[in-house]
Amino acid sequence: MPKPALLETFPNPYPKRDYEIFMTCPEFTSLCPMGGIESDAKELELLEGGAPDFATINITYTPARVCVELKSLKLYLWSFRNDGIFYERVVNRILDDLSVAVKPKQMTVVGDFNVRGGIKSVITATYRAPKRRAR
Amino acid sequence: MPKPALLETFPNPYPKRDYEIFMTCPEFTSLCPMGGIESDAKELELLEGGAPDFATINITYTPARVCVELKSLKLYLWSFRNDGIFYERVVNRILDDLSVAVKPKQMTVVGDFNVRGGIKSVITATYRAPKRRAR
Amino acid sequence: MPKPALLETFPNPYPKRDYEIFMTCPEFTSLCPMGGIESDAKELELLEGGAPDFATINITYTPARVCVELKSLKLYLWSFRNDGIFYERVVNRILDDLSVAVKPKQMTVVGDFNVRGGIKSVITATYRAPKRRAR
Amino acid sequence: MPKPALLETFPNPYPKRDYEIFMTCPEFTSLCPMGGIESDAKELELLEGGAPDFATINITYTPARVCVELKSLKLYLWSFRNDGIFYERVVNRILDDLSVAVKPKQMTVVGDFNVRGGIKSVITATYRAPKRRAR
Amino acid sequence: MPKPALLETFPNPYPKRDYEIFMTCPEFTSLCPMGGIESDAKELELLEGGAPDFATINITYTPARVCVELKSLKLYLWSFRNDGIFYERVVNRILDDLSVAVKPKQMTVVGDFNVRGGIKSVITATYRAPKRRAR
Amino acid sequence: MPKPALLETFPNPYPKRDYEIFMTCPEFTSLCPMGGIESDAKELELLEGGAPDFATINITYTPARVCVELKSLKLYLWSFRNDGIFYERVVNRILDDLSVAVKPKQMTVVGDFNVRGGIKSVITATYRAPKRRAR
Amino acid sequence: MPKPALLETFPNPYPKRDYEIFMTCPEFTSLCPMGGIESDAKELELLEGGAPDFATINITYTPARVCVELKSLKLYLWSFRNDGIFYERVVNRILDDLSVAVKPKQMTVVGDFNVRGGIKSVITATYRAPKRRAR
Amino acid sequence: MPKPALLETFPNPYPKRDYEIFMTCPEFTSLCPMGGIESDAKELELLEGGAPDFATINITYTPARVCVELKSLKLYLWSFRNDGIFYERVVNRILDDLSVAVKPKQMTVVGDFNVRGGIKSVITATYRAPKRRAR
Amino acid sequence: MPKPALLETFPNPYPKRDYEIFMTCPEFTSLCPMGGIESDAKELELLEGGAPDFATINITYTPARVCVELKSLKLYLWSFRNDGIFYERVVNRILDDLSVAVKPKQMTVVGDFNVRGGIKSVITATYRAPKRRAR
Amino acid sequence: MPKPALLETFPNPYPKRDYEIFMTCPEFTSLCPMGGIESDAKELELLEGGAPDFATINITYTPARVCVELKSLKLYLWSFRNDGIFYERVVNRILDDLSVAVKPKQMTVVGDFNVRGGIKSVITATYRAPKRRAR
Repeated sequence: MPKPALLETFPNPYPKRDYEIFMTCPEFTSLCPMGGIESDAKELELLEGGAPDFATINITYTPARVCVELKSLKLYLWSFRNDGIFYERVVNRILDDLSVAVKPKQMTVVGDFNVRGGIKSVITATYRAPKRRAR
Repeated sequence: MPKPALLETFPNPYPKRDYEIFMTCPEFTSLCPMGGIESDAKELELLEGGAPDFATINITYTPARVCVELKSLKLYLWSFRNDGIFYERVVNRILDDLSVAVKPKQMTVVGDFNVRGGIKSVITATYRAPKRRAR
Repeated sequence: MPKPALLETFPNPYPKRDYEIFMTCPEFTSLCPMGGIESDAKELELLEGGAPDFATINITYTPARVCVELKSLKLYLWSFRNDGIFYERVVNRILDDLSVAVKPKQMTVVGDFNVRGGIKSVITATYRAPKRRAR
Repeated sequence: MPKPALLETFPNPYPKRDYEIFMTCPEFTSLCPMGGIESDAKELELLEGGAPDFATINITYTPARVCVELKSLKLYLWSFRNDGIFYERVVNRILDDLSVAVKPKQMTVVGDFNVRGGIKSVITATYRAPKRRAR
Repeated sequence: MPKPALLETFPNPYPKRDYEIFMTCPEFTSLCPMGGIESDAKELELLEGGAPDFATINITYTPARVCVELKSLKLYLWSFRNDGIFYERVVNRILDDLSVAVKPKQMTVVGDFNVRGGIKSVITATYRAPKRRAR
Repeated sequence: MPKPALLETFPNPYPKRDYEIFMTCPEFTSLCPMGGIESDAKELELLEGGAPDFATINITYTPARVCVELKSLKLYLWSFRNDGIFYERVVNRILDDLSVAVKPKQMTVVGDFNVRGGIKSVITATYRAPKRRAR
Repeated sequence: MPKPALLETFPNPYPKRDYEIFMTCPEFTSLCPMGGIESDAKELELLEGGAPDFATINITYTPARVCVELKSLKLYLWSFRNDGIFYERVVNRILDDLSVAVKPKQMTVVGDFNVRGGIKSVITATYRAPKRRAR
Repeated sequence: MPKPALLETFPNPYPKRDYEIFMTCPEFTSLCPMGGIESDAKELELLEGGAPDFATINITYTPARVCVELKSLKLYLWSFRNDGIFYERVVNRILDDLSVAVKPKQMTVVGDFNVRGGIKSVITATYRAPKRRAR
Repeated sequence: MPKPALLETFPNPYPKRDYEIFMTCPEFTSLCPMGGIESDAKELELLEGGAPDFATINITYTPARVCVELKSLKLYLWSFRNDGIFYERVVNRILDDLSVAVKPKQMTVVGDFNVRGGIKSVITATYRAPKRRAR
Repeated sequence: MPKPALLETFPNPYPKRDYEIFMTCPEFTSLCPMGGIESDAKELELLEGGAPDFATINITYTPARVCVELKSLKLYLWSFRNDGIFYERVVNRILDDLSVAVKPKQMTVVGDFNVRGGIKSVITATYRAPKRRAR
């Protein structure tokens, strides 16, 4: 289960200037929540969930008061490893958890998932701080 | 014959946020409807239609209430396999069928067809929901 | 000599929707009209014109009532093979001939010519239909 | 069903010199013979066989008395389109059919199949003429 | 724990000819067995083992009587997902398990592991059948 | 410790025209300020600081009265070699030091840091001269 | 010494239409004017100037009445070969000389210089005709 | 018609040492001799021969007493431009003509032809001097 | 100063089989021992040695009784960071230190150094165990 | 004129072990000795020789007693800048000069010259020490 409590932050060292932080995490893996395209009962027993999914997660944000601590982000992303979760939820959930923890001026999360059934999927979601204008 | 009835959907898990889903399907194949550049009578007998065409189909959309289910999309794209159909119809037909099934806020379909007669063709068509503003 | 009479069209199957057709033709060849950089008298005798030029021709357009037929486009481009013609004329001539034949809402032709004398040239020209707004 | 009768040959124009002909066919498609990883009953109805497979077929040979005619090779490869056939059979079957038709001094067929179930397969088989030494 | 019992085989359809099968599996993941470079107590609790490792596993073999069934190979590779195991053991263990199950004439396994601590590792091991000459 | 005093400038030879200078420095290295992810006590003794970081630093600016002298920029970037400093500080510090020294109309600094803990970071910060409008 | 007198022009064959000409010249070389980073007295004697610089020069323009003749451009660029000249001057000088000779509606010159002292530089300058609006 | 009389040579400046010369000519074009895959009567009228073929010709040789002069090789390759000739003949003919003109210790000609009918062909032929051992 | 005492080993888990371990370390840095091409007195003061060098170090070996521990290798390579040392010494020294520590059946070290003075250098050295035959 | 006297050497620090040094110099330039393909009288006046040639020079050798000093090699290669010299001579001359200066166990020089007249040339020459066996 995703564990947002693992996310830690540190004070933004340059809070007066809007600048952008991009992080790319090519080693994301979770499980498919269905017994669908690529899995059957036997496999479900094997992994206590569905077939493995793999993705690169890209995160871009403009920090406000705090930045996300890199090691804690790694641990948070690891916490999806044995969870059954749909692509759309992965991306929107990471965006929700990170924007709560970091309260950025703006943040975009992109999940670029490996081919399944001959089709590759990329999901992109964006958060904008409600009462501050991002640059 | 393209079978839009194969398309299935599931409820958008994050309907309050506009986000984008991109899917790329590099294994599309159909048949040329003519006895034209690359085929003749003999070949038509062989395949009960014209020469094979190959394409990568890219689909980008902003979901509204539902998302397209990935496996059903794969089956729908397979249903073109033995049909004689022009490039322009392939792309506009997929856009029509998908926008009827998914009712997205916005959707773009790109068909990137392999070289024929030394010329490569890419067709791009876009649908916008009539009475909602996409972001 | 370029033969625009070779160009044939077929009715646009989706005339109500503005969509884009891109075609790339990497096998264009013509002759240099001058006895210049890469040729001399001896060569002129050989080819009844100047040194060979090679280019990739890219065509992008939004069809109105008709689309250009792919095989006829190939034949039209072949008709430059033994003509002496400058780069600028090649691109603008193709744009003129195609926009007359197809009457598109908008069309761009790009000629990407191979290195000559250590310099590579790319020419880009655009046509817009006079009294219709392209999207 | 693969139709080797489609293969035609023409006399090797340089029979005294051993030389090599390589042909690559990136548009091979057949069907999976099983109701396995990527297909189920519903799909079988759709395609009268299993899920589509895609491959690039590479053929290298040293001609003896005849060469394979290019267009007939294309038609022969098309004849696999709606057949259910395993990867190993595809490659060995093409090698058998071509070596019977062309009687080359030596021939290698490589089938480079698209990812299925997260795994990509490449099969390579070689034929050597029994009583002639290839170079 | 790696489960070689998951591996299934089918009869080699062309047992008289030596030919080569190459399979590449870019989605291998296991866990680091140590509390070393990239993990600490906290992370061990999280994953019940060490930090995740990722690799591409390449397998090349010349089949004798049987071939490995593709889907069963996928399940076997999935069985490493939550095991703590060193790189050298991963590669040699896969080679041992597969060569017992398939009894190939020859087999090579390559594990190409992602960067850890700024260093990338690739392990290559080969098996040759003891009393048969491979080609 | 970063030594901005090393930065030297020369008069902009074309002060009347706004033009852009881009410099990319792929050999930046500094130390991690923490005893964190990739280092421990033993390593700290070794390097008198944390683990090494590596980055490409890209600088783009529109000069006003002066340009930065290339060799002095190289020496300035070398002065980070044995300093413990966070990514965010590296990029913002370089931007501060350079914009003080060069007083450009506009300047952007991008720090593209190598993967650490399976995550790659890119930081981008921009300065705009307060009382002049850049183009 | 750069010799703008070498530049020749020919009448724009399509003066009524705004179109774009891009030329890339990957074989530009000049000398460094300083006894700086990469040269010393001994070298200066060798080359009667500083160390060699290498660049790719990219030129994009919208012709008005005339176009630059390709061979004359090549000769003009050769005239920098044994001159000591700074990067910023190279790009702005070429822009000045060409815009005087061709009087284009708009022109951009980009100089992409090879790495020196571990740093690569790219200079971009643009000219716009004073009293005509470019498209 | 190929004109081997165009080929000129110059004395090998280092005849005592075996060394290798490789030349690649990416701009070869000839015509298809058949009214086959890509052409019909109409096209034959257009080009007084079949459809255009395009290839890259690679030549590698160890010179003996003479080397081939580069410009004369270019003219010789141009002499195929309007000839109808099969791939196999192109490569073997160039090898014959060049080995007669240059009498090399060894020479290989590779013709890498563009895709026709979805199939790409590469022909490789080698000549070895009869009574001298190549290195 | 290189500190071979940092190198640690662990028992080879598969000592009966010859297999190969390849490691690539793209983040090697040391200093130039001379006041030469890229440095002068001022810089020497700055870094207490010469100008920084950067390299990728590739190590391939066949383990005998022990394997090198990955983290200890990283620390050993870090120990060159502030040393002035020539390219040839870097590669041969690493080979000496590692072959003493690991006593491999065979080992190759490749140092691929970044461009200096417009020239890139790659040094390759190999060790073979004296009284054992490597495979 | 090439000045081999510029070449300097330093003692091989590991003379007991055969190892390989590879250097690549992508910034070689000389002049064409003829008034041929790319030049005429006017240009000859401009450059006091023929049209500029550009190449990448690759040098691989096994040192015996001495290694070539990198900076001196750079100066030696610069000494060809304003010389008219054929491709074959460039490569063989560099090999002669370097093998005299360095007396290597073995040395190969490759000159990879830019396209001229649509043809690219690569010349490769090898020296082997007469009375010592290279490894």
